[in-house]
Amino acid sequence: MSEFGTLDSRVHRKALLDKVVSAEECIQFFKSGMDLGWSGFTPAGYPKAVPIALADHVEKNNLQGQLKFNLFIGASVGAETEDRWASLDMIDRRWPYQTGKNIAKGINEGRIRMGDKHLSLFAQDLGYGFYTPKIDIAIIEVSEILADGSLVPTSSCGVIGEILMIADKIIVEVNTGQPSFRGMHDCIIPQTPPNRQPFLITKASDRIGTESFPCDPDKIIAVVESKNRDKGRAFADADETSEAIAGHIMQFFADEVKAGRLPENLLPLQSGVGSIANAVVGGLAKGPFKNLTVYTEVLQDTMLDLFDSGKLDAASSCSLSLSETPGFPRFFDNWDKYADKITLRPLSIANAPEPIRRLGCIAMNTPVEFDMYAHANSTLVGGTRMINGLGGSGDFLRNGYLKIMHSPSVRPSKTDPTGITCVVPKAPHIDHTEHDLDVLVTEQGLADLRGLAPKDRAQTIIDKCVHPEYKPIIQEYFDMAKKECLGKSVGHEPQLFDRCFKMQQNLAQNGTMKIKNWDIKVDLCE
Amino acid sequence: MSEFGTLDSRVHRKALLDKVVSAEECIQFFKSGMDLGWSGFTPAGYPKAVPIALADHVEKNNLQGQLKFNLFIGASVGAETEDRWASLDMIDRRWPYQTGKNIAKGINEGRIRMGDKHLSLFAQDLGYGFYTPKIDIAIIEVSEILADGSLVPTSSCGVIGEILMIADKIIVEVNTGQPSFRGMHDCIIPQTPPNRQPFLITKASDRIGTESFPCDPDKIIAVVESKNRDKGRAFADADETSEAIAGHIMQFFADEVKAGRLPENLLPLQSGVGSIANAVVGGLAKGPFKNLTVYTEVLQDTMLDLFDSGKLDAASSCSLSLSETPGFPRFFDNWDKYADKITLRPLSIANAPEPIRRLGCIAMNTPVEFDMYAHANSTLVGGTRMINGLGGSGDFLRNGYLKIMHSPSVRPSKTDPTGITCVVPKAPHIDHTEHDLDVLVTEQGLADLRGLAPKDRAQTIIDKCVHPEYKPIIQEYFDMAKKECLGKSVGHEPQLFDRCFKMQQNLAQNGTMKIKNWDIKVDLCE
Repeated sequence: MSEFGTLDSRVHRKALLDKVVSAEECIQFFKSGMDLGWSGFTPAGYPKAVPIALADHVEKNNLQGQLKFNLFIGASVGAETEDRWASLDMIDRRWPYQTGKNIAKGINEGRIRMGDKHLSLFAQDLGYGFYTPKIDIAIIEVSEILADGSLVPTSSCGVIGEILMIADKIIVEVNTGQPSFRGMHDCIIPQTPPNRQPFLITKASDRIGTESFPCDPDKIIAVVESKNRDKGRAFADADETSEAIAGHIMQFFADEVKAGRLPENLLPLQSGVGSIANAVVGGLAKGPFKNLTVYTEVLQDTMLDLFDSGKLDAASSCSLSLSETPGFPRFFDNWDKYADKITLRPLSIANAPEPIRRLGCIAMNTPVEFDMYAHANSTLVGGTRMINGLGGSGDFLRNGYLKIMHSPSVRPSKTDPTGITCVVPKAPHIDHTEHDLDVLVTEQGLADLRGLAPKDRAQTIIDKCVHPEYKPIIQEYFDMAKKECLGKSVGHEPQLFDRCFKMQQNLAQNGTMKIKNWDIKVDLCE
Repeated sequence: MSEFGTLDSRVHRKALLDKVVSAEECIQFFKSGMDLGWSGFTPAGYPKAVPIALADHVEKNNLQGQLKFNLFIGASVGAETEDRWASLDMIDRRWPYQTGKNIAKGINEGRIRMGDKHLSLFAQDLGYGFYTPKIDIAIIEVSEILADGSLVPTSSCGVIGEILMIADKIIVEVNTGQPSFRGMHDCIIPQTPPNRQPFLITKASDRIGTESFPCDPDKIIAVVESKNRDKGRAFADADETSEAIAGHIMQFFADEVKAGRLPENLLPLQSGVGSIANAVVGGLAKGPFKNLTVYTEVLQDTMLDLFDSGKLDAASSCSLSLSETPGFPRFFDNWDKYADKITLRPLSIANAPEPIRRLGCIAMNTPVEFDMYAHANSTLVGGTRMINGLGGSGDFLRNGYLKIMHSPSVRPSKTDPTGITCVVPKAPHIDHTEHDLDVLVTEQGLADLRGLAPKDRAQTIIDKCVHPEYKPIIQEYFDMAKKECLGKSVGHEPQLFDRCFKMQQNLAQNGTMKIKNWDIKVDLCE
């Protein structure tokens, strides 16, 4: 018997025990070209046994490129599944977000057709049948199957509901390698317009759904026992830069409370992932604000620290994306301390504009770069090469009470430790527009852009956010753009379209964005 | 006695009759540098008597530039007010949208500091005090002042509620030159987070508020009688191009109904303004769909035709923006036919993501241009020069069930009747990203982009939307971008940053976007 209960103890609809098979026995169900829907969101709650068995099958039998699937999953999943699938040429289409060297390579070389979408839109559009009229096979990891056939998820809700809406056949992986998460979820499948009803969440801890997702047991073609744990990412430690950024943000919060624009316990926090997010959460754990709440899409290890500090009352998220170690063991060992303060929601609710605006979330995310007019690039390095995807950054930045993006002012290039400026004259790709961002922060300072017209915004960003080595370069561009603009009035947002990307081109050619001047000799060769 | 009732019959809080003054007598209240909030949205429901008196005062006394104000209004208002103010150098800051040659000129020359924001965000951020902690003087046009001091708007709700939240002093213009609009509004002032409550609208005709906006009578410093009608815009007739676009859209709707992705009465429609929008509404009036509803921000004359066709059951909007003639006379003469089918809502509700997503609006708007990856520019001609502003296009395009943008494939330049292509390799300014748009339409055809990866999207847009004279040019660019990209893998969304704006530069230099080749000789002058 497993430490966490037998399969029998997790499958309450006993007739389904007749459908128990091994992961390998499921291989027969899969045909190349199928549309697959998986549970999972960030490396949490995704199926592992069947995807790994399929990958082993392809590798052992040299079937690379002969067994290819379209993958629809709430967000990224563990590298041992999707990234390994990419390395075995098992992915054709992939929506809407991914993580992994091999999968990114496949996307950027054009072998994998990735669609990048706001996560809240992906969830509903999948249910509407906008990507595919049906999912051929769904693979859903669960904690338990209840007597009515409904499914209790594990560490994330993702788009399980929408997948079940359009799935033909379902394989259920029951994970007995960890405790059941029953009672932590708030499951709801939103109805399709015109029948959709309000999501009556007025605080982060409100629940409007049920403990499981309804599922037609006749669609379940196999039940597989799995003991694989989520391969949660180890998280980046805060460094001097991220501590400085967090310091600016903490000061800003204090000033907003003083000005009466934020309550003393702030408003529900949404925080992205990475070292800056960790530094901000660390700052909150040490800071003056109490009775905090979190309404976000991913909870990571640092959130346990914030709970431990006694300052966090409740957290709502789409996934509990802890590290395999020490995160999950720490969580499981202290289940009673954390479990009733956490609500895991479907992506379609966690990221929905409706609760995010109503609650007034404070949205904080890190872009690749932002420009002097406050447009931000979150997805394509150099304007063309996909990293991971947009994720839910837009869902929160468009609908939060305060919309904050934070970034180091510079990053190293291959040859220059400050060879890349994260503040540029014009972002070569734009995921978030100037109309969406209130506050930009680097370790240099914080630019509060609320109420500023574009030219005032640009000067503020240059003054507050740009690294000293780039300040004269970008100031020169801005001054030049304000003067000349093809003989016409410079306009609302001056740009020089013959040289606005000169810094990016210089990086590609000379390894640094530090250009010596803005001169450019162009022959249009008409 | 006025045809539409005396001032006495419109002011039910009789004590306020002591505050009745002429518009000219209000001039004394205004000091240069003040923050002003006006009612109004599109040229509907804005104050006229006092703004015109102030303009006359400045003109008569040569006070140009000496009496300057910051103007916060729901959207644009009549040219006889804001545009005349601009011509008299009476505007410093202006949020969030405007219409008029003089005001656009002031913005593009840098004399007027315009902030351009999604209208739904503007409404709430104004109430939060993000633009100014207080409004010095509010000028609100009303139909009636009720006994409790509350204000019944006229032809729009705009941001009256948010202005009243932060206004120090209020001037009320009671418009007795037209019938009272009492009973047509659904007034509500959303609470600030964390106390905001759900907006329980589940169909376009639902009402969740009251007939008037609460107002502290002690803040009212003057009541002015006005008889000026809204200077509603004459609207563009449909032409061959817009009829072709509307035809593609009608066919798309029919196909979506057939595929089961739209109900037979479609879903609530949001339609922008202009000739294409009129052609679409015209197409619906003649088409097969019945029991339609509209959930939008502006109702124009054509909507009366759709009501007359018997196919429109209900319309919700922020403003009733009819033409001065024949629109308003037609409406007033048939009041009983239209009035109870129309609900006028505050901007903060009309454009809120919450009801737009829940209802599943079909969003349709016209951009300046869109690019081959489906990024759209709605605001800045040539990437720098402001036309009107973003308006509510993003509110609807980000949250609709279907997100449609439509545009002619070409427009005339000064020297070439097809000198401007509205489909470009890379939009020089981006207001709506690739992550938001489902369907792009020109008279050439309709590109359904749902579920397509960027490169597939680009080919579809080139095939379906680009004008024949530009198809080879843009295809050549796309093919070239897919091959070379500074020696690296071309990436997820190939672009050539040394020449992506060559067509725009050619237009500025040679009067047409028809370039002869994509060659470019660049010396970075490092």
